[in-house]
Amino acid sequence: MERLGFEAEHEAFRESVRRFVTEHVVPHREDWERTGRVGRGLFRAAGAVGILGVAAPEEYGGGGVDDFRYNAILSEELATADVLSAGLGLSLQADIALPYLLHNCTPEQAARWLPAVVSGEAILALAMSEPGAGSDVAGIATTAARQGDHYVVNGSKTFITNALNADLIVTAVKTDPSAGRKGISLLVIETGAAGFSRGPKLAKVGQHAADTAELFFDDLRVPVANLLGEEGRGFYVMMKHLAQERLAVTVQATAQARRAFEICVEYVKGRHAFGQPIGSFQHNRFLLAEMKTEVEIAQTYVDRLLLSHVRGELTAVEAAQGKWWTTELCQRVVDRGVQLHGGYGYMAEYPIARAWIDSRIQTIYAGTTEVMKEIIGRSLGL
Amino acid sequence: MERLGFEAEHEAFRESVRRFVTEHVVPHREDWERTGRVGRGLFRAAGAVGILGVAAPEEYGGGGVDDFRYNAILSEELATADVLSAGLGLSLQADIALPYLLHNCTPEQAARWLPAVVSGEAILALAMSEPGAGSDVAGIATTAARQGDHYVVNGSKTFITNALNADLIVTAVKTDPSAGRKGISLLVIETGAAGFSRGPKLAKVGQHAADTAELFFDDLRVPVANLLGEEGRGFYVMMKHLAQERLAVTVQATAQARRAFEICVEYVKGRHAFGQPIGSFQHNRFLLAEMKTEVEIAQTYVDRLLLSHVRGELTAVEAAQGKWWTTELCQRVVDRGVQLHGGYGYMAEYPIARAWIDSRIQTIYAGTTEVMKEIIGRSLGL
Amino acid sequence: MERLGFEAEHEAFRESVRRFVTEHVVPHREDWERTGRVGRGLFRAAGAVGILGVAAPEEYGGGGVDDFRYNAILSEELATADVLSAGLGLSLQADIALPYLLHNCTPEQAARWLPAVVSGEAILALAMSEPGAGSDVAGIATTAARQGDHYVVNGSKTFITNALNADLIVTAVKTDPSAGRKGISLLVIETGAAGFSRGPKLAKVGQHAADTAELFFDDLRVPVANLLGEEGRGFYVMMKHLAQERLAVTVQATAQARRAFEICVEYVKGRHAFGQPIGSFQHNRFLLAEMKTEVEIAQTYVDRLLLSHVRGELTAVEAAQGKWWTTELCQRVVDRGVQLHGGYGYMAEYPIARAWIDSRIQTIYAGTTEVMKEIIGRSLGL
Amino acid sequence: MERLGFEAEHEAFRESVRRFVTEHVVPHREDWERTGRVGRGLFRAAGAVGILGVAAPEEYGGGGVDDFRYNAILSEELATADVLSAGLGLSLQADIALPYLLHNCTPEQAARWLPAVVSGEAILALAMSEPGAGSDVAGIATTAARQGDHYVVNGSKTFITNALNADLIVTAVKTDPSAGRKGISLLVIETGAAGFSRGPKLAKVGQHAADTAELFFDDLRVPVANLLGEEGRGFYVMMKHLAQERLAVTVQATAQARRAFEICVEYVKGRHAFGQPIGSFQHNRFLLAEMKTEVEIAQTYVDRLLLSHVRGELTAVEAAQGKWWTTELCQRVVDRGVQLHGGYGYMAEYPIARAWIDSRIQTIYAGTTEVMKEIIGRSLGL
Repeated sequence: MERLGFEAEHEAFRESVRRFVTEHVVPHREDWERTGRVGRGLFRAAGAVGILGVAAPEEYGGGGVDDFRYNAILSEELATADVLSAGLGLSLQADIALPYLLHNCTPEQAARWLPAVVSGEAILALAMSEPGAGSDVAGIATTAARQGDHYVVNGSKTFITNALNADLIVTAVKTDPSAGRKGISLLVIETGAAGFSRGPKLAKVGQHAADTAELFFDDLRVPVANLLGEEGRGFYVMMKHLAQERLAVTVQATAQARRAFEICVEYVKGRHAFGQPIGSFQHNRFLLAEMKTEVEIAQTYVDRLLLSHVRGELTAVEAAQGKWWTTELCQRVVDRGVQLHGGYGYMAEYPIARAWIDSRIQTIYAGTTEVMKEIIGRSLGL
Repeated sequence: MERLGFEAEHEAFRESVRRFVTEHVVPHREDWERTGRVGRGLFRAAGAVGILGVAAPEEYGGGGVDDFRYNAILSEELATADVLSAGLGLSLQADIALPYLLHNCTPEQAARWLPAVVSGEAILALAMSEPGAGSDVAGIATTAARQGDHYVVNGSKTFITNALNADLIVTAVKTDPSAGRKGISLLVIETGAAGFSRGPKLAKVGQHAADTAELFFDDLRVPVANLLGEEGRGFYVMMKHLAQERLAVTVQATAQARRAFEICVEYVKGRHAFGQPIGSFQHNRFLLAEMKTEVEIAQTYVDRLLLSHVRGELTAVEAAQGKWWTTELCQRVVDRGVQLHGGYGYMAEYPIARAWIDSRIQTIYAGTTEVMKEIIGRSLGL
Repeated sequence: MERLGFEAEHEAFRESVRRFVTEHVVPHREDWERTGRVGRGLFRAAGAVGILGVAAPEEYGGGGVDDFRYNAILSEELATADVLSAGLGLSLQADIALPYLLHNCTPEQAARWLPAVVSGEAILALAMSEPGAGSDVAGIATTAARQGDHYVVNGSKTFITNALNADLIVTAVKTDPSAGRKGISLLVIETGAAGFSRGPKLAKVGQHAADTAELFFDDLRVPVANLLGEEGRGFYVMMKHLAQERLAVTVQATAQARRAFEICVEYVKGRHAFGQPIGSFQHNRFLLAEMKTEVEIAQTYVDRLLLSHVRGELTAVEAAQGKWWTTELCQRVVDRGVQLHGGYGYMAEYPIARAWIDSRIQTIYAGTTEVMKEIIGRSLGL
Repeated sequence: MERLGFEAEHEAFRESVRRFVTEHVVPHREDWERTGRVGRGLFRAAGAVGILGVAAPEEYGGGGVDDFRYNAILSEELATADVLSAGLGLSLQADIALPYLLHNCTPEQAARWLPAVVSGEAILALAMSEPGAGSDVAGIATTAARQGDHYVVNGSKTFITNALNADLIVTAVKTDPSAGRKGISLLVIETGAAGFSRGPKLAKVGQHAADTAELFFDDLRVPVANLLGEEGRGFYVMMKHLAQERLAVTVQATAQARRAFEICVEYVKGRHAFGQPIGSFQHNRFLLAEMKTEVEIAQTYVDRLLLSHVRGELTAVEAAQGKWWTTELCQRVVDRGVQLHGGYGYMAEYPIARAWIDSRIQTIYAGTTEVMKEIIGRSLGL
């Protein structure tokens, strides 16, 4: 079935993204996984092709097109090349962090930051989660006390993607610790200042190329000019951006599931046991039929969500529905894929094995499956 | 999310269907379930509103519009009124049996049969399954031996919807028992002739208003003029029509699942236990969130299939995917719905209870889930 | 694998139960399902063989052996003969209601009631559930106001097994409506008195031979001598007996699942499609392998629970674990069994079809799966 | 519920195993995972406590007790200390490889090999799988051609546990390549000879302390005196030992599942979100209730299998049932455990994360879930 809503200009962009992935991501993946972080050059290369700032105004070097299908194409091409997780930092920058700047910067801030972000000179991170507050964003403890024209920031963040590479970090802080969610603000922290430090890379079970780490703020002075949006509005800004963040994960999970399905079809045709291709066993044939069905159903739903989002109509509930369902699907598919591969499914060099460890976090980050169900359930008045 | 592809003319038709259902189906359901069959007047009433022959040429009283969304609307409105199973005979006539006539009649046959079929004077059935051949259509044993300008038919059919009410029965027979699937032909059997008899209504666990029964042919003479399509082409004709038949079930299952979800949302808000509405328990809230998500995902896929079908692009594989996935979904949803209703979910007067027993056959008829997975699996070259 | 804990005397009893089932239940099942209740003679026949009062003292005609394995044997033999649901009233009497009398009667009450109960002259029911209070037992609204040496009872009960046949009904009432669960008492209501009436048989989707109905109490005068146990202790008595009630359902569900598995093995060997026995398809073979595994695992657990119960060590948590897991298993097995039978699985004359509709209530009555999980979860300190 | 069949002597042994694990495994785990193999001293320490040769005759330093419960205790204690995978080599030696020697050695062979194996001086491996033959054991391609009093071995093996540390490798070879399964024999290969080499450690997604690797045989000369059992009987010997191998994995999976459950209970009590312990959310409470139930049901079944095995009655089908069901259960439990831990469940330092990656191979090795279902299905005559 043809994709819904992808036009000629999207397919042209897809071609250039595919070349970028082939030239700038695939050859380095293994190295990056060993060293635990991607090279900074990756971002510059992406910037050069126009991947990082499709939605940014042309005056800052962007594409000036607010169309998330372009972002989706990046995730899809990364997945197709078995490097979704190596490209996670790019997706974080383009899909999730950049919109915070686009929608909340003052003109001065935009002029200061956007050109470097769009070109890939500056690497972004988004710092919300803390050791004591994950899905429960309102529970953060990092404080930012106003002192003249600076905020003095104290606290820490964890599970931060791009933590080691980042130059600019959109950070949720409590500017008024007594005001609950109304006391939360967003600061853009420029790394390098005294009082800012990064923890070592966290040892994750997968996504080895992603430089996930903790960040520490110890009397870190951040200029008031780096306040993003209004003081006390941070929680609401974050809530507003969550739908797109979840759509991004939805797209990734669906692309990953599709790729895992394709890997499996190929594998079961080539691998023989008991004198026949293992794909000819009815159990395996049914399994692949189930995968295909559910991947296509997911794709159809995702394409509808993308269209809605392009029209500005994507709701929090729809994003939550897509997020939990496709990420759970992706995990079912890659898990079945591992089983289909037998012992080889457990070998790190096999893409299905990496897909299995890499995708496990998808039902957790950007809001767990359980939080998604709460959102949907509450929308029903329950 | 708005339905994809439903336009103003569809919604106008929906209004008239809704009135028809309210006036001509709902008040009789209980009676029909007790007596085990719907009244013949139901078909005439449906014909009067134009429900039975949307796709039939205007010269025979039809709508002249080959657009399966109109058929979908009938199923959806029946489901919404909790009478899907009472309307099963209508759907069988309009969605599944009529197309056999439309696409295979000679002009003479069309003139003989279509006016009565479209007006609801004549009730259709489709007779394929036999005691020894269900999903395995090629294995039928009913024979039709040519004698002059008649076929002499011997054999029996089972699980035939509309069996007691039917006037015209599109029947698969073996005109050449030695030729396998190439020996299968289709005859339109006009009931009433000597040698034709109907068994008693089969006692099913659900769908009590549907007059499912066996049919027996004992030296039944059928004029050669009643041959539908070419001799020996019956198997291929059936295969061609299966996609639409499966799409019909897909639509019904999705509409039933949606209705069950709505019933449940309402129920859990009104029913209290341990001092609170049972919908406020997290377990139940999550359950309804899951139902909502999967029903919307199914709906999105179904709407895409409908659009494909309207364009003449629906493939056998897509229909198979929709069929198994939505019917399995429907059963999950109604089963969870029964559980949510507690003891009341087991009481026949509750719509959720009827939905549970009525929908169980959906993963079996029109090709089992297992046959669907075979079709999909083989399309992958497995 | 040999059953754990079943000795020679149990197997001897099993033989006599099997004869009883063959002679007194099987021949009448169809009739009873049509009329909606079993004959009273069934209870007398069961009493004659010693089935109803294994645990009752010998002085009242009982077996004097407090060993629930004998009760388990009745359920197992009923299931093996495809009449579990026709024997439900017997199980209710012997497994669930009788223990209320055995453990709470005064000597006078025992002498009044037990001989007729053990011989099957008197039929028991247990009345807890109300329209507004199912799993939430403490929420009952039926009141019993003391007036001299009578209680005046007002209210209603629903979902009562044996409701139409019952002579003695152990009934939960509120003797002190202001005292919550401490205001609940148990009365033995002798049917026939003014102010007592029964509703019509409830139309259930299955268990058609079971005379489930509502009961109404309208200024019904019950002698204080019919108070069972202490006033205000009814809730605690019910809680104490729930473990055995749940074990009874656990045994039934496991026996039903085992029987469904056996039916299916036989069916898939005899039924052919596409030129081979359908059991030879890998999908079906795997399905039956899964059924067999889970049925044996369930049986092993049930036998351990039975041994624990014989030793007086069965805990509420263990009973809850057995109850939810085996009843959910039973529903999975019978549902898969229906699918294996294709269209025949939907025909009421097939045992698998009846097993499907009959067993659906098992995850609901005697405490829903959800209530079981609450019990277990809370025992973990959560 | 008390364990079935564990007596005082088992519990005494458990104490000494627990001390061994605490002193000799736990402190080294992290190192071993980093270096990719356990130290050889681990085996000597285990031998010193009597862990490696419980079943070996006393004359060779063994315990002289053929009671697999002692082996089970090792796995259980390793799991309890979160080091199951670090102890995998020990289990392989004691549970799986040693029995090959015990049941098939000539007295001369026993005298040559057993003392060192029991003391832990010699480390065992078992080499069956090949790149082209996993579950399909009969399909191996490694040949052993008789030349005088030697076999000349050529071929390779893969997925071999203890591959890097092993001194003695029980190896399946084809002594008669034309005779199918009747041409398979077993040789004990002593490492170090010319023509024997080991591949690098395989990069697995989990079980990082296990030195899994390939083995290569290039004109390797093995004395005929190293033939284990009769020539041509190797396949049957392997089949006979598979039941115990699968029971070993069954025990490990159940112990791992139990441990994961315990970890989760503790975690959800301590971790707070939205102002309450996350264990107090109904969804999580139900999840833990499900885990507890299924772990206890599994344990009950495993204990029965152990008892059967001690009596020499364990069948291939029972072992297959235990193997697939408990390994699938273990994966469900650890997967749910990861989800309960949120982001921390993805951090390699957390035991639940390691349990997740370590246990994934359990449904694959020692015969996949699918092979288990084939075995069971065929035993039903399907």
